[in-house]
Amino acid sequence: MAGATPRRRSRGGGGAARRAERTAIKIETAKYIERNIPNFEVLSEEALDIIEHNAETVLEEIGVNFIDNPAALERWTAAGAEVSGERVRIPRGLARQLIKTAPSQFTQHARDPGKSVVIGGNNLVLAPVYGPPFVRDVQGGRRYATMDDFNKFVKLAYMSKWLHHSGGTVCEPTDVPVNKRHLDMLLAHMTLSDKPFMGSVTDPSRAQDSVEMCEILFGKDFVQENTVMTSLININSPMTFDDVMMGALEVYARNNQACIVSPFIVGGAMAPVSVAGTLTQVLAEVLAGIAYSQIIRPGAPVIFGAMVTSIDMNSGAPTFGTPEASHITYGAGQLARRLGLPFRSAGSFCGSKLPDAQAAYETSNSLNMGLMAGVNFMLHACGWLEGGLVADFEKFVMDADQLGALHGLAKGVNMDENAQAMDAIREVGPGGHYLGCAHTQANFQSAFWKSDLLDYKPFETWEEEGARDTRTLASNRVEHLLANYRQPSLDPEIAGALAAYVAEKKASMPDAFI
Amino acid sequence: MAGATPRRRSRGGGGAARRAERTAIKIETAKYIERNIPNFEVLSEEALDIIEHNAETVLEEIGVNFIDNPAALERWTAAGAEVSGERVRIPRGLARQLIKTAPSQFTQHARDPGKSVVIGGNNLVLAPVYGPPFVRDVQGGRRYATMDDFNKFVKLAYMSKWLHHSGGTVCEPTDVPVNKRHLDMLLAHMTLSDKPFMGSVTDPSRAQDSVEMCEILFGKDFVQENTVMTSLININSPMTFDDVMMGALEVYARNNQACIVSPFIVGGAMAPVSVAGTLTQVLAEVLAGIAYSQIIRPGAPVIFGAMVTSIDMNSGAPTFGTPEASHITYGAGQLARRLGLPFRSAGSFCGSKLPDAQAAYETSNSLNMGLMAGVNFMLHACGWLEGGLVADFEKFVMDADQLGALHGLAKGVNMDENAQAMDAIREVGPGGHYLGCAHTQANFQSAFWKSDLLDYKPFETWEEEGARDTRTLASNRVEHLLANYRQPSLDPEIAGALAAYVAEKKASMPDAFI
Repeated sequence: MAGATPRRRSRGGGGAARRAERTAIKIETAKYIERNIPNFEVLSEEALDIIEHNAETVLEEIGVNFIDNPAALERWTAAGAEVSGERVRIPRGLARQLIKTAPSQFTQHARDPGKSVVIGGNNLVLAPVYGPPFVRDVQGGRRYATMDDFNKFVKLAYMSKWLHHSGGTVCEPTDVPVNKRHLDMLLAHMTLSDKPFMGSVTDPSRAQDSVEMCEILFGKDFVQENTVMTSLININSPMTFDDVMMGALEVYARNNQACIVSPFIVGGAMAPVSVAGTLTQVLAEVLAGIAYSQIIRPGAPVIFGAMVTSIDMNSGAPTFGTPEASHITYGAGQLARRLGLPFRSAGSFCGSKLPDAQAAYETSNSLNMGLMAGVNFMLHACGWLEGGLVADFEKFVMDADQLGALHGLAKGVNMDENAQAMDAIREVGPGGHYLGCAHTQANFQSAFWKSDLLDYKPFETWEEEGARDTRTLASNRVEHLLANYRQPSLDPEIAGALAAYVAEKKASMPDAFI
Repeated sequence: MAGATPRRRSRGGGGAARRAERTAIKIETAKYIERNIPNFEVLSEEALDIIEHNAETVLEEIGVNFIDNPAALERWTAAGAEVSGERVRIPRGLARQLIKTAPSQFTQHARDPGKSVVIGGNNLVLAPVYGPPFVRDVQGGRRYATMDDFNKFVKLAYMSKWLHHSGGTVCEPTDVPVNKRHLDMLLAHMTLSDKPFMGSVTDPSRAQDSVEMCEILFGKDFVQENTVMTSLININSPMTFDDVMMGALEVYARNNQACIVSPFIVGGAMAPVSVAGTLTQVLAEVLAGIAYSQIIRPGAPVIFGAMVTSIDMNSGAPTFGTPEASHITYGAGQLARRLGLPFRSAGSFCGSKLPDAQAAYETSNSLNMGLMAGVNFMLHACGWLEGGLVADFEKFVMDADQLGALHGLAKGVNMDENAQAMDAIREVGPGGHYLGCAHTQANFQSAFWKSDLLDYKPFETWEEEGARDTRTLASNRVEHLLANYRQPSLDPEIAGALAAYVAEKKASMPDAFI
């Protein structure tokens, strides 16, 4: 599989190669965002103090549950918590003390070292949608996701300039048995892309498989000394840590691999129906989860996660791109920074069933807010549709294009002499125009961010070309990208070893669909 | 016309009245936004000092042109500027000195006193799109705007909860002669709505007509003592003040009516192709324009305007919702606040030809940025399509709905004891859910902003109902709103006097279409 590119190349004659060169898309990956703009903060110091105080009260008085995990309860007792049944009550200040060993930022290595990412600080790393059981595109409509869809999304992410990360379960390949699909998914990330990726969390044994596949890809010593996966550990809010997710976290932390410790909250259902109350619970849950990761291995890389949104109380449906979701995210960012932890939140969130205007309003609200909130790792940064039930092909490239705008915003304002442009103003003067002036000629190519997808043509041209809407343009782009995909090269020995590992693992157990 | 509502009511029987009551839309207008969140600032103090210094250099060295306006040149000479031909060079610091008499905020009165708005400070007043020669809707496609379209937009703005202002030229009624259409437009704002509105600026005589119609509506003394119109004075960037716009400004300033003094800039064409250079020119132009307003009448209410966006250098088309447009707007907000002036910028900007995802991404980028930039008066807050060439009916209600999200965001975070929700967290505990708890029951109705338009239904319901996209939902809403429109009451004597004024003016001159 990994040898496909060189083989294809060698088959092509000189003319074919030149033709390919002309029509090929240049595959570029932007460096992760390094913000040169401030974070937006909605909470006062006093408000933050109140929330921090209340979160400690929650941990001390109410506590959290660690389910079906006797070893975790023993560890908590040894660490100084008060354990009763599965309830863990954490004395005021203890969790905060334990998390001090967590790094404020860490590097996740990619197999292409140029695509390694630094998560934390002023940085923002963008990764695609995670988890949808369905996919949708113009041609096929809404349907269950398959491994073929999964591979396509990995290819699209690889070819998307503004995505720094290949993600994890970009969709659930429902045609592969549950107990084996993580193997195919990891193999796809490792061989179809060279961007950093996430590991499996659906069972501790699958987390272990993920580590072992990384040891093949990166080398065993490298994996033990470096972080090569960032995986998503959801908390069952309110305040419940189940054995599957915690089992996966234990595997990753022991192997020095990064975890996002992330409450999954629809406000009003899994947390109080208020911003301050939700933030209190988020902080309590994250403190407990990250403290536990540091009990497992002090210094294990972790991310303060917050997958939080609002609810429509009439229908019970989660709502996205709402002001309250923004308030929670801004506040969570402030809390994460006060703890000195990398922060994960936001994404291309929407409730719409189609990649239409609703989807774009909600998504744009969320993406902008995520940048301004100081998010360091943005999962779901493109492709999310219908409350996360659907990974949409067109929306994937539409959102991925908008991520370019975030890169531009984060740059801040250049104030050097050339940017001040006084000579241009002198040259042009009142009533003139700048299109032809020397300063414009020298600077226009890098001056303004430009979409690779959206329509900027005059009305008449647009109409002659078929009056295409954004979804149609995006459908064309998906097709064009996939047609021009070229697999990144990989040492055939490693590729073979990975394939053998997957084959052997698959053969070692019967299919299971639960 | 003004008596229509009472007459219609008296004709209906009891049953009809009750039916009307049940199906009628409640017409509510939200109070203008009073921000309880910080402004987002991208420029350092040092950067602002540089831009202010450079703007003074532009005024002193290069100067601005006042075209076909000998009286303006005399006034400038008397004020201490150096005039040569039509060029006005303003010594460093003079413009800044002159604008000190401009108020930092002012009240624009509506004929319904409950709908008067305070422009400046932490407030944000939202007004609809201004100026498009075309309209578009699902049924009729893209076509030249007519007075009938204009009336519909005024009705929609009147019925839109989140619009505080009726605007001005919501579209250009191209079926009415150019020299008479301002009369019909003002009559529509005055009689079909009771929200504040804008006056005509296409000729000084039409500004005078606007003042005279306001004197009929509000009373002559009231108009001289209060601001009842906020009108849009565009600067012909770079650095050119034409006699038509300045003539209108002179009329309004003399009559104590407010003007937005607003460079209209596509960066790279009418200003340098850099953020810092564009901000320098914007500041120079606004300083000159507002200083001139204060020469006309010290204390006349004015707004620091900035209608600025980026360009696609390939096609020459303006581009919207881009990072550079955001940088300019954030920076302009900082400059306006340093001058202590109300700030106008942003809007539902987009380049898309349809109210599709592109339109919504671009619009959402602009609307969010406008709120965060500290904008005090947002013209074009809904309905803008295709670079401002088109007023779109569906997008009007789509954007107007999103303005509700801005209201929610601006509220900030409630930190009182009820919002802290500690009792709810205690009541529910680990593993529980909040849907039924006492705190949720007591707070859910006001907890989260909810769209009046977007689809929050489960996939299956949505599909059964016809799988409608946002544009289709919006089309239904436009129809529903217009069907349920009820004209606000107006003293029949005033209504008659306004109609007579318009008839008399129209009869006094032949039609002109230039």
